[in-house]
Amino acid sequence: MIQNENEIDVVVKQAEAGFQFLQQCNVIERAKLMHAIADEIEAIDSMLIETAHLETALPVSRLEGEKSRTVNQWRMYANAVHTGLYSEARIDQSPDGKIDLRKYNKGLGPVVVFGASNFPFAFSTAGGDTASAIGAGCSVIVKAHPAHVKTSQLMADAIHRGISKYGASADIFSHVVSNSFEIGQQLVKHRLVKAVAFTGSFAGGKALFDLGQSRPDPIPVFAEMGSINPVFVLPDYLTDNGEAFAKQYIGSLTLGVGQFCTNPGVLIGLEGEKLDTLKADLKREIQAVATGKMLHQGILDHYNQLRGEMIGCNGVNILAEGTDNVQEGFAQAMLVETDAAQVLHNPELLEEVFGPFGLVISCADRHEMKILMEHLVGQITLTFAASDDDMWKYQDLFTIAQNKCGRLLFQGMPTGVEVKHAMQHGGPFPATTDSRFTSVGPDAIKRFLRPISFQNWPDEFLPKELQDGNPLQIERLVNQHWTKE
Amino acid sequence: MIQNENEIDVVVKQAEAGFQFLQQCNVIERAKLMHAIADEIEAIDSMLIETAHLETALPVSRLEGEKSRTVNQWRMYANAVHTGLYSEARIDQSPDGKIDLRKYNKGLGPVVVFGASNFPFAFSTAGGDTASAIGAGCSVIVKAHPAHVKTSQLMADAIHRGISKYGASADIFSHVVSNSFEIGQQLVKHRLVKAVAFTGSFAGGKALFDLGQSRPDPIPVFAEMGSINPVFVLPDYLTDNGEAFAKQYIGSLTLGVGQFCTNPGVLIGLEGEKLDTLKADLKREIQAVATGKMLHQGILDHYNQLRGEMIGCNGVNILAEGTDNVQEGFAQAMLVETDAAQVLHNPELLEEVFGPFGLVISCADRHEMKILMEHLVGQITLTFAASDDDMWKYQDLFTIAQNKCGRLLFQGMPTGVEVKHAMQHGGPFPATTDSRFTSVGPDAIKRFLRPISFQNWPDEFLPKELQDGNPLQIERLVNQHWTKE
Repeated sequence: MIQNENEIDVVVKQAEAGFQFLQQCNVIERAKLMHAIADEIEAIDSMLIETAHLETALPVSRLEGEKSRTVNQWRMYANAVHTGLYSEARIDQSPDGKIDLRKYNKGLGPVVVFGASNFPFAFSTAGGDTASAIGAGCSVIVKAHPAHVKTSQLMADAIHRGISKYGASADIFSHVVSNSFEIGQQLVKHRLVKAVAFTGSFAGGKALFDLGQSRPDPIPVFAEMGSINPVFVLPDYLTDNGEAFAKQYIGSLTLGVGQFCTNPGVLIGLEGEKLDTLKADLKREIQAVATGKMLHQGILDHYNQLRGEMIGCNGVNILAEGTDNVQEGFAQAMLVETDAAQVLHNPELLEEVFGPFGLVISCADRHEMKILMEHLVGQITLTFAASDDDMWKYQDLFTIAQNKCGRLLFQGMPTGVEVKHAMQHGGPFPATTDSRFTSVGPDAIKRFLRPISFQNWPDEFLPKELQDGNPLQIERLVNQHWTKE
Repeated sequence: MIQNENEIDVVVKQAEAGFQFLQQCNVIERAKLMHAIADEIEAIDSMLIETAHLETALPVSRLEGEKSRTVNQWRMYANAVHTGLYSEARIDQSPDGKIDLRKYNKGLGPVVVFGASNFPFAFSTAGGDTASAIGAGCSVIVKAHPAHVKTSQLMADAIHRGISKYGASADIFSHVVSNSFEIGQQLVKHRLVKAVAFTGSFAGGKALFDLGQSRPDPIPVFAEMGSINPVFVLPDYLTDNGEAFAKQYIGSLTLGVGQFCTNPGVLIGLEGEKLDTLKADLKREIQAVATGKMLHQGILDHYNQLRGEMIGCNGVNILAEGTDNVQEGFAQAMLVETDAAQVLHNPELLEEVFGPFGLVISCADRHEMKILMEHLVGQITLTFAASDDDMWKYQDLFTIAQNKCGRLLFQGMPTGVEVKHAMQHGGPFPATTDSRFTSVGPDAIKRFLRPISFQNWPDEFLPKELQDGNPLQIERLVNQHWTKE
């Protein structure tokens, strides 16, 4: 337990020493280190799953899958670092030989990571933020999520075992446990901290962002703050697919008790017979959804409160609820309906209700649907349940949609975030604090890198990524041509 | 002349329409547009040079060089955009064929550009910020620099001729003239503006940054705010090179009346006989430097004021001055000296004096030199006048230096910023507001791009950069392999 500023100072100074260590490691060394950490996470025994299950109420099978995913993230990011993709090595030599300019990306410095409660492995202590910061050559200080401190400690221990087996300095990773918000804030404000990564609520992320920007020296604070992930269901698609779509939508909405930042909390369609039929299908589907235990009591209380506020709003009607055998800590799914005119008058209806809660919005016509699209704030995802015919007819909608989200889906559902190079898990504010970056996929590493140029620097003192002989055999842009020479 | 918020709103809405236009242009189309603009800048007659000479007092030959450089920037950035380098196209297909994920970079939206007074062509209206924003597919609103409004208008007209010849919408570029600070601030605060680029003073850049971060939806504000670009002159190097170095240093310090953001305003050495000899050489060199006319009276007043404050500080002595035939608007060069102990007590001695003013700092020993390095804030450049022998001895200094600057130089002088892929013109705060980006070289384009993923999106509706047949023939990362297939 960290309790005061002096203790924070010790931790951050350790992280600074750890950063100095990592600064001497080239991309191949960092990749090996990351695989060593992945090995240790992979090797943790069943105690990890049991502990996480007790702390988060997430099902064992889900946690087993998330553990594999976490290991895979480390390995995938390691392999990407190994290729030199993120070094972006560039060499330019003037024809007269007088100026030799070489640039590559290095780590920013110590990074503070605030994990998410809903992914105790993949987006927490040993999650994507930690892996991408280490991949960038940055040391990491994790502020353990108070909802799963024991899980966090097991992961931190595994990371330290990996660090030790590789032979790196233990200072490259620190684990801070505290129940106090102030400790997290003081970490963000510490002069030696150079970046912050956060996954969680808007209130939490925005507060840390503001803190980072109001420092004497502002630092990047990447906060992924969730969104309502609207699904637009278009008329031609509904003709043949309504029933299957209803099943798919309710499945995605209530998956994991709705506790995903890509949860499709809003469904938008055109009023009329087809939408009425769909509503009946949706109603039937959600009525069969069993109650589910949420991550912790605080999240459940928040869910019930926001849900209550929503159904108290003018023009919002309950369409249907899930089964009501509510036990302690369990949440009941709910689907409500309203129309676009209400939403345009009261934008609060478009705020996230974290949990198995969906809002169906009917638009009078496609013009109103377009206006609603224009009123959306930044989203992680936007989904079109559309036929090819709809695609031709609603092109104006897609044009706007591209500036509203990080990922566009044709059919399918936004839950299920592939860890891939082509994944963008981000989006315009307020989905994140910087739409130029992603927090899923190896590109997440970019958040923690900055370029440095060396002009006429003697070869033997250059980082290996930039030396004449290309000892690491990475792709480099040499005099505007890609080469390994 | 723009005078009120309603007029601003009209301009920004035009820029939004321009952005919608650019959004439909692929990288090859944008590259052609940029070459069309470059053609028109190239074709402007001698009136441009004459006007700029009258407005900025910069010599005709320098302005002619800067004009070529400006044209070359547009062409180089266009060529880089054309290759797809900044599209970062990524395609991942799941083995079972169920998930097809494609990502590329698109423009953020309308960008507001505040140009620099000291580069009326290359870093102003038609400068690197405008070229990189258009290259990213963003529309641009330039707030004309009040010190060279006529020059700015000529450039704006050329840009519009280029846009018209290419056949693009005139809305993609707007030119705003106003003497009021508020107009600039209102532009940064407008909800449709999505990014800001600034080159100039710390006070100006930081104010715009704060404004951008305190919006309801924060936006990226990249401000390049100059620095003091310290030169470390190491003892072994001085043994044989003192005289030549003195000539080189004073040349760089007083080049263009010291009006460069890479001006080497501080020289740091070890006290002793060699530094004394160097000081005598520097003294002789600067005494021969003629007065020079500064960009405008405001800059000269500021120079004289800051110079006065510096020589009023405890422990600061005048070493020598340039010739004193001061005419109206002209600045006299000056070199002052102090020691590291004074600087460590009074960090204000390390603030930038924009103009031909140098501060020589003597360190008692290499330990003090290291402490001084540790105390430096972020710089655009750091230079080592060092021999190979010095390089071996002072490695601890270089390790720290890498976290203090955007560009490290071995010998040579920091003035003269090559427009290359390998150039990093940036650096940790307060050199810029975000060390992860550069404002010189094609990589400057990255500031205005954000990724978007398309999941299972029908091929015909994808941007050309991501379509199956790779119609633009750009390099893409397909299932983790680079290919043009």
